[in-house]
Amino acid sequence: MALPSEMKALLLVGDGYTRTPSAGALEAMEPYLRPGSVALPTPGPTQALIKVNLASINPSDVAFIKGQYGQPRVQGRPAGFEGVGIVVATGSDPYAKSLEGKRVAFATGVSNWGSWADYAVAEAASCIPLLDTVRDEDAAAMIVNPLTALAMFDIVKHEGDKAFIMTAGASQLCKLIIGLAKEEGFRPIVTVRREEQIPLLKGIGAAHVLNEKAADFEAALREVMKAEQPRIFLDAVTGPLASAIFNAMPKRSRWIVYGRLDAEPTIIREPGQLIFQHKHIEGFWLAEWMRQFRDRLGPAVLEAQKRFSDGRWSTDVTTVVPLDEAMARLPAELAKPNGKVFIKP
Amino acid sequence: MALPSEMKALLLVGDGYTRTPSAGALEAMEPYLRPGSVALPTPGPTQALIKVNLASINPSDVAFIKGQYGQPRVQGRPAGFEGVGIVVATGSDPYAKSLEGKRVAFATGVSNWGSWADYAVAEAASCIPLLDTVRDEDAAAMIVNPLTALAMFDIVKHEGDKAFIMTAGASQLCKLIIGLAKEEGFRPIVTVRREEQIPLLKGIGAAHVLNEKAADFEAALREVMKAEQPRIFLDAVTGPLASAIFNAMPKRSRWIVYGRLDAEPTIIREPGQLIFQHKHIEGFWLAEWMRQFRDRLGPAVLEAQKRFSDGRWSTDVTTVVPLDEAMARLPAELAKPNGKVFIKP
Repeated sequence: MALPSEMKALLLVGDGYTRTPSAGALEAMEPYLRPGSVALPTPGPTQALIKVNLASINPSDVAFIKGQYGQPRVQGRPAGFEGVGIVVATGSDPYAKSLEGKRVAFATGVSNWGSWADYAVAEAASCIPLLDTVRDEDAAAMIVNPLTALAMFDIVKHEGDKAFIMTAGASQLCKLIIGLAKEEGFRPIVTVRREEQIPLLKGIGAAHVLNEKAADFEAALREVMKAEQPRIFLDAVTGPLASAIFNAMPKRSRWIVYGRLDAEPTIIREPGQLIFQHKHIEGFWLAEWMRQFRDRLGPAVLEAQKRFSDGRWSTDVTTVVPLDEAMARLPAELAKPNGKVFIKP
Repeated sequence: MALPSEMKALLLVGDGYTRTPSAGALEAMEPYLRPGSVALPTPGPTQALIKVNLASINPSDVAFIKGQYGQPRVQGRPAGFEGVGIVVATGSDPYAKSLEGKRVAFATGVSNWGSWADYAVAEAASCIPLLDTVRDEDAAAMIVNPLTALAMFDIVKHEGDKAFIMTAGASQLCKLIIGLAKEEGFRPIVTVRREEQIPLLKGIGAAHVLNEKAADFEAALREVMKAEQPRIFLDAVTGPLASAIFNAMPKRSRWIVYGRLDAEPTIIREPGQLIFQHKHIEGFWLAEWMRQFRDRLGPAVLEAQKRFSDGRWSTDVTTVVPLDEAMARLPAELAKPNGKVFIKP
């Protein structure tokens, strides 16, 4: 296939990180993105060039284009952390070459060259060859949430205890994990910020749902910790809530940070617990997990594709916005509740 | 050997932790210890009963009897974290039984039944059978500092990088580690609080010595981090100093906390580093290391004994105080600079 020399993309306006953090919603496109044409990128030795079929939009994308995600922006590069498409060129690495011509779900966190464009660049290790039975709408949004859910639940399963705890319990990611956990008899404990989220989450399989805004939260937390003894803490929030949870956890607990929804300082309340209770603090980033645990990635990827193929999982689509119309339409489409918004080049 | 039914000991006055922390020095004995007689303890299945020849006094003992160490006190039990003596009885576990009659260095952190007494109880795994060539004075103080130094330097060696960083660089422990590191061509970076400590520590092998009180400390820290890229941080201090160091360290760094000299809050400045830079925060406790790394313990123990046998290491003795005189004499003896104070039952 002959490739063009130029391509259209939504390009980052800012560089590095912002100094003026703003809220999570995307109030307008212009401060952060501009439509443009750039030279078609060349994949590095271990990378793939992908003709994008469909790209998804996640909260982490919005944080990133605003410069408030943990990776620095590069001005003038395309945005977009994931998508689905056809591999049209690769580097010289044998695994990368093996992807040539394949339809893949891909993530661009490591390559830092985004999916909101005609073509994207991803590390071959961040590309997932797809079964024909997986729709583009499911594949384009398969990595950031579904595969992360499977990877994080895999960590829980490897640790062995049935009980574990998560902040931001009402997020799409946590709901997926709760569902997986319920099927296998695990006991997720989650925190939420609104009372009305409690029955919903209990309904899908949460063993305990704690309202972090309730007056008796710390007492309820201690009681649940004592009864359930969870040793894995999957944390999207940090700040004082996460500090309190980690402090109340038993010996040999692992605080696994994967998000930073609270900008308040994150304090280790009792550093002595690290010494005498063998507690750990670490992070989770899917790109790193995919690199480190190739043997565990394969089964997780197959599981995600099976679930999307047989309908156990299905992505709710709000809208598919053509790349040309994205500047005008994205903020309003993203403001609609539920469902996912996609960009189609 | 017929064992007595009672024994003399220095017994803990307080229980659990204190609510009114005080300074590191031992200003008086009476608030914390009382001399007394208690029934001879019976070792548990995996434990040994040791007739104490000599017990040492470490800063961690003083913190512990005051209730400001990370383990809770049990009122009425003997104090004292380490010593040397003869195993006179054991539990039924085969490894414990194999120690019967042997002269051992021992640590009581796990058994929580101390060495400042005629007899002590230690886990068999916390007992080290001794070569005849090791003096009691060296054996009684062999675990808390020398073996910890070897264990922590073993962590550095396993990580592989030549450069590493330590707080409280002028401590006895850090000086031992600096000496070990120099012999094997490693590059220790240490922080100190007084300018006059810098030439001494450079003289024994520190690659860089940073004065944490200097006005340009953070700039100097950043420069050294950039040049040396240390990934292991052995931290006795916590608080703002440790937060600043961890924040300045490169990808895949490990902050290993083993002490808490600063009571100020310990903040994780950039939790995003845990996610995207794969940084970790953990603790080090020798008792746990001895349990987890039995294969690495053997060589470390042999190395410590060789160094004490051939004179490369030697414990400076300030005084040996008879157990009967300890209440009256310990505070004044401990106030003397350098050297170690021992208790002889």
